[in-house]
Amino acid sequence: MLHKPGVTEGLAQRVVATRWDDIPAQVRHQAKRSLMNFFAVSLAGCRSSPIEIALRSLAGFSGGRQVTVVGRRERIDALSAAFLNAASANVDDFCDTHVRTVIHPTAPVAAALLAFAEWRQASGPDLLLALVLGNEVEARIGLAISPSHYARGWHITSTCGVFGAAAGSGRLAALSERQMVWALGAAATQSAGLCECLGTPAKSISVGNAARNGLWSALLAEQGFEGPPEPLAGVQGFYHALAETPDLSHVSDGWGEKWEIMATSYKPYPCGFVIHPVLDCVLDWRADHPTADVRRVVVRGHPLLAVRTDRPNISTGREAQVSVQHAVAAALVTGQAGLEQFTDACVRDPNVQALRSKVAVERDESFSTIAAAVEITTADGKVHTLKQAAARGSDANPLSDKDLEGKLRTAAAGWDPHYDATPLIDAIWTLDRNADVGKLTSLAVPR
Amino acid sequence: MLHKPGVTEGLAQRVVATRWDDIPAQVRHQAKRSLMNFFAVSLAGCRSSPIEIALRSLAGFSGGRQVTVVGRRERIDALSAAFLNAASANVDDFCDTHVRTVIHPTAPVAAALLAFAEWRQASGPDLLLALVLGNEVEARIGLAISPSHYARGWHITSTCGVFGAAAGSGRLAALSERQMVWALGAAATQSAGLCECLGTPAKSISVGNAARNGLWSALLAEQGFEGPPEPLAGVQGFYHALAETPDLSHVSDGWGEKWEIMATSYKPYPCGFVIHPVLDCVLDWRADHPTADVRRVVVRGHPLLAVRTDRPNISTGREAQVSVQHAVAAALVTGQAGLEQFTDACVRDPNVQALRSKVAVERDESFSTIAAAVEITTADGKVHTLKQAAARGSDANPLSDKDLEGKLRTAAAGWDPHYDATPLIDAIWTLDRNADVGKLTSLAVPR
Repeated sequence: MLHKPGVTEGLAQRVVATRWDDIPAQVRHQAKRSLMNFFAVSLAGCRSSPIEIALRSLAGFSGGRQVTVVGRRERIDALSAAFLNAASANVDDFCDTHVRTVIHPTAPVAAALLAFAEWRQASGPDLLLALVLGNEVEARIGLAISPSHYARGWHITSTCGVFGAAAGSGRLAALSERQMVWALGAAATQSAGLCECLGTPAKSISVGNAARNGLWSALLAEQGFEGPPEPLAGVQGFYHALAETPDLSHVSDGWGEKWEIMATSYKPYPCGFVIHPVLDCVLDWRADHPTADVRRVVVRGHPLLAVRTDRPNISTGREAQVSVQHAVAAALVTGQAGLEQFTDACVRDPNVQALRSKVAVERDESFSTIAAAVEITTADGKVHTLKQAAARGSDANPLSDKDLEGKLRTAAAGWDPHYDATPLIDAIWTLDRNADVGKLTSLAVPR
Repeated sequence: MLHKPGVTEGLAQRVVATRWDDIPAQVRHQAKRSLMNFFAVSLAGCRSSPIEIALRSLAGFSGGRQVTVVGRRERIDALSAAFLNAASANVDDFCDTHVRTVIHPTAPVAAALLAFAEWRQASGPDLLLALVLGNEVEARIGLAISPSHYARGWHITSTCGVFGAAAGSGRLAALSERQMVWALGAAATQSAGLCECLGTPAKSISVGNAARNGLWSALLAEQGFEGPPEPLAGVQGFYHALAETPDLSHVSDGWGEKWEIMATSYKPYPCGFVIHPVLDCVLDWRADHPTADVRRVVVRGHPLLAVRTDRPNISTGREAQVSVQHAVAAALVTGQAGLEQFTDACVRDPNVQALRSKVAVERDESFSTIAAAVEITTADGKVHTLKQAAARGSDANPLSDKDLEGKLRTAAAGWDPHYDATPLIDAIWTLDRNADVGKLTSLAVPR
């Protein structure tokens, strides 16, 4: 009688059997783009208050200076580095998105893999293969439980990220099929994270844990730490506990034909995505009118724009991320929409405050969520009309490689104006020819 | 307008406000009994294969010889010690039970607190107060979500244990109310663990994490790591994600009037509780008939006895824990029902094998689950009839202090026949007069 593999076993088989040669060139390239974005957002986030506290706390228990923490001169053990790098990448809500699941896929997976690869001196191709596969497992498990899982309050980046980190780390460790099932079981019983924590530092705990615990799941499995044969679809398993009506076909169908990492969006601006087409319009216009005296702005977009971001009165940088009035005002005053434009200081800037009150939002159901129109009235009475059909960073208008490089350069310069990101950028683009990932990660800390 | 505290805030207020003087003498004594049982089961479990692997793995990342690992000569950082001691206590399914929730309450809470108290050189009364409060929080959160939570596949010891460990550790750290809310939030977003892993080493991961992550939650909160104001009852919080129709009255009602730690049962035998009244009968009879030639045994009990444990053909020690035939046979052959009677070796013993086939099980709805009757027919044709109305270890027939001491002595002797448990036993009974918990934990390692 033929053995019909279970859901977890089948997934483990696919992960273990997939080789670097199976990964098409554009998928390999997309993995590098995800890493470019990962280093950009990690460098931007690595000195925020939650990361400082977590690093100080973990260092008190850590054993050694095993691996790099992105953007930090401290070195730490590989498990703690996985935690910290995932938390840094995600802390500003500036990381990438798998739109259908709203998973931020790279933070937990890349953080675990970079720590593990540096520690074990793995090669660039092995890292990239593991990143593609970890992303694939994470997204597919997420697709199977969407949308009920997120609707129930689960922070899907964390709950599915732990599987991606485990699968990717397990592939990097060259686990057997049986060990891979154990790793996925160890991940399942550590899957956690609540959306209730979004908007607070506690969000970073489950994101960091997803990377740390995923990596540890693979390490335990490597040492022969056994788990159940069907942790995903067993009667008391992950799907039963954390989803309503999972569609398990997503776990297996079309494996190797399409790759979920190709469905990754990267954000140009660190704020709610519905604001992005508005910022595209405003920034383009501001580049041509740097000294204009703006009297009134009317923003028109999909109703969600108003529902989520019509927020003229705000007091913190975190609120600014979901205020279209603030985004427009800050972009007009500074000509930029980077992390500095979404700080408490920028919210308190009198020029920005004055302009916020002059921005009105109108709902128009004829717009998609990635489109917007903006009317800017200047002191001379002229009305300037701008339109964006597909926001930068959306599937229809993805960031170019140069855009992603620019995002990394900006983050590096924000850390230290003397920090030249070019070697890191070059190391990412040539990672498939790199024999030791440590050479890459060593460049992610300013000298 | 009066501020009405939220669910989490109210709980935090109660934990922070409760003092050692508020704890009645019999509750203090029960806390010591729970510790006695904890050290017994930890000493019994601390050299099992899952613990060996986890210790070896964690030691590779650990920073120092901060605190004791029960029963081990290795010392390790406090977070890893919390993990290991909780896993050791629970690995043999020999730890205590809060019957209404089926939480095994002491493993995650005591493991976190002992590691923390030794590290910070806390006093015995502070440890005991934190243990009572941690147990209280864990059991009350569990009561609020029972029975739907466990039915959904959640391993309630792990998912609620992390709250107990966080609350107890937070009390030991003298957190403010606000910090305690943050600690409970950090615990909520780390709450995890699936029943699918029961019966495999992976079970130990979520139990260990409950202690480790609960302790870390309190340490983060102490450092000002903020979380949401209502992690338990918020719209995307713990109850929404992990329970169907929570009854939040359990979280607050009667605080300080009754203590859930008084509802703790301790097991005399490391096997399913429904087998316990049967073993009481068989062991008593065997003590008086050490050389009898048994031809047939008929066991009668509540239908659950047959449903769960009518299992004559087994091959592993783990299966033996839920086989009434094996338990009876092993007890008759050896005169004991300790950890050695539930090993693979005992399952393969030819005398035990032969006797297993002579044990029959009958269902009788007139019995409660803690009662049983046994008929033993000997070679001389005599039929011996035994009855137990309330199993030893049940609420109606709790283990005496001497029984618990004996359980600890047996575990210690099983570790090393020269290991005298008396100093450890004395240190537990006098813990409320001990100024440094380190004096206690140092006795939990054979010299």
